[in-house]
Amino acid sequence: MPDLVRRARDGEVRAVARLVSLVEDESPVLREVMAALAPHTGRAHVIGITGAPGVGKSTSTNALVRAYREQGRRVGVIAVDPSSPFSGGALLGDRVRMGDHATDDGVYIRSMAARGHLGGLSWTTPQAMRVLDAAGYDVVLVETVGVGQSEVEVAGLADTTVVLLAPGMGDGIQAAKAGILEVGDVYVVNKADRDGARQVAQDLRAMLSLGERTHDAWRPPIRRTTAQSGEGVPEVVEALDEHRAWLEETGALRRRRVRRARAEVEAIAVADLRRRWDATAAGHDGLDDLAGRVVDGALDPYAAADELLAVVQG
Amino acid sequence: MPDLVRRARDGEVRAVARLVSLVEDESPVLREVMAALAPHTGRAHVIGITGAPGVGKSTSTNALVRAYREQGRRVGVIAVDPSSPFSGGALLGDRVRMGDHATDDGVYIRSMAARGHLGGLSWTTPQAMRVLDAAGYDVVLVETVGVGQSEVEVAGLADTTVVLLAPGMGDGIQAAKAGILEVGDVYVVNKADRDGARQVAQDLRAMLSLGERTHDAWRPPIRRTTAQSGEGVPEVVEALDEHRAWLEETGALRRRRVRRARAEVEAIAVADLRRRWDATAAGHDGLDDLAGRVVDGALDPYAAADELLAVVQG
Repeated sequence: MPDLVRRARDGEVRAVARLVSLVEDESPVLREVMAALAPHTGRAHVIGITGAPGVGKSTSTNALVRAYREQGRRVGVIAVDPSSPFSGGALLGDRVRMGDHATDDGVYIRSMAARGHLGGLSWTTPQAMRVLDAAGYDVVLVETVGVGQSEVEVAGLADTTVVLLAPGMGDGIQAAKAGILEVGDVYVVNKADRDGARQVAQDLRAMLSLGERTHDAWRPPIRRTTAQSGEGVPEVVEALDEHRAWLEETGALRRRRVRRARAEVEAIAVADLRRRWDATAAGHDGLDDLAGRVVDGALDPYAAADELLAVVQG
Repeated sequence: MPDLVRRARDGEVRAVARLVSLVEDESPVLREVMAALAPHTGRAHVIGITGAPGVGKSTSTNALVRAYREQGRRVGVIAVDPSSPFSGGALLGDRVRMGDHATDDGVYIRSMAARGHLGGLSWTTPQAMRVLDAAGYDVVLVETVGVGQSEVEVAGLADTTVVLLAPGMGDGIQAAKAGILEVGDVYVVNKADRDGARQVAQDLRAMLSLGERTHDAWRPPIRRTTAQSGEGVPEVVEALDEHRAWLEETGALRRRRVRRARAEVEAIAVADLRRRWDATAAGHDGLDDLAGRVVDGALDPYAAADELLAVVQG
């Protein structure tokens, strides 16, 4: 295990992939892995990228990867696919996604299924981010399909959140507005060569100036790109670097990360409890027994919850 | 408190409303309320109603209420509004919703905000259902906007799940297909007077016959209604009664309810733990301290979760 961690930190892509697989499989050795990685975390700039289907998220992610690589920075990408609650499967394999970057050791791209509670991001995502961070990637991009609540979640995970828009998306943007205005640190209007791009940027600027951003003093910039050609992408990288610098100067970086770690630690603790409850579900005073007594009206759910907690406390 | 429960059971609508408010406010006396209600639960037929925006959910709910009332059955309705993660507010007040039934003591309608983890249904919903069940309503309808995962959730809550469709919804239906086919016990194609209603029913029948419904042997019927005029609604009530009878005969009713109670008990236990963790967050070995040590790389998240659990176990 320490060997695997060492090789990942030496830049061996296969070792990185193996570690992310351990995360995805919820391997029992994960504890050991995370303990070995812990001292090496905290360097990467974690950037969340979200937006409605069709705005060009994958193309934009690719263009960002290229721009960072031109500056010699190493980039890790986690693409989360919150498709079906039933399939749980990621649509694209690593190889397909790697595309242009398949022969570049400075890039690692990984699709992960959105598992766990209620779509959006699973609690394995922060752990995969942690692997890429510890493996020495300078930038970790987390790409999610922005559908309602997952924007809010990716904002909780990232140091910096990029919200992508595009002209001609109509209702999608309308529907997403409320959420979008609260989570973006940098806004990018993609497909800037199309009609209406300027209008989208203008509308967005008006909405942002109206909204109260009580949580901090950062004024989110709006950039326009044509991700397909790479036009405008260096300016996005610049804005991202500025936000990172701002986060560090104001102490907001640590506050965001503590909040993220809180949620992660809590999620692991709860998952651990659920596992223990499942393991003892069948026995007397197990979860099945307690639930059965609730159904029979012999016990109310609060009293049952108390008994459940008494099990772990005993 | 016992008096309030007695009055609710005597059919006093104001007492019922007061009990649901205690649930919604997460009142500290909730434990006491639930303990008093427990022996009286388990009689109501809990029916979930879901479907994409625009299929006519509220109109259908209203039509169902009317049909049940014509049979002399008492009906409680919980309308869950999973609008914004930020507002958390229900759109319509009780009075507005009551509409046609405002002067009918046999009907109680209540809008609840979708709170708690990630939109969809909050864990207060099952408790409100429990109140209406114990208050003696023969049927409890739970109406939710079907957007992605919340269909799955309402199916988890109800004895019987009704999935509503309508002609001319196009993409909405396409997107929802996967989820829809797994959760419906009874399908209703509303707006049957419009072009394409027959086609929607045909497509649905074809899809249902292809899909494998491994979880049980019930073959979900498809009914067509014009909820506005009430046409076809008695046939839906009939289908719902048949499903309820089937659930009882096969023992599926108890299995579903135990599963539901399991989730509810677990959610209460987890919420209780989170409260305790929040209360001690600021102190040494509190959640903030642990999260800070994770951010500093001094602790990995698993070890932090262990320490967190040690607090409740201590």
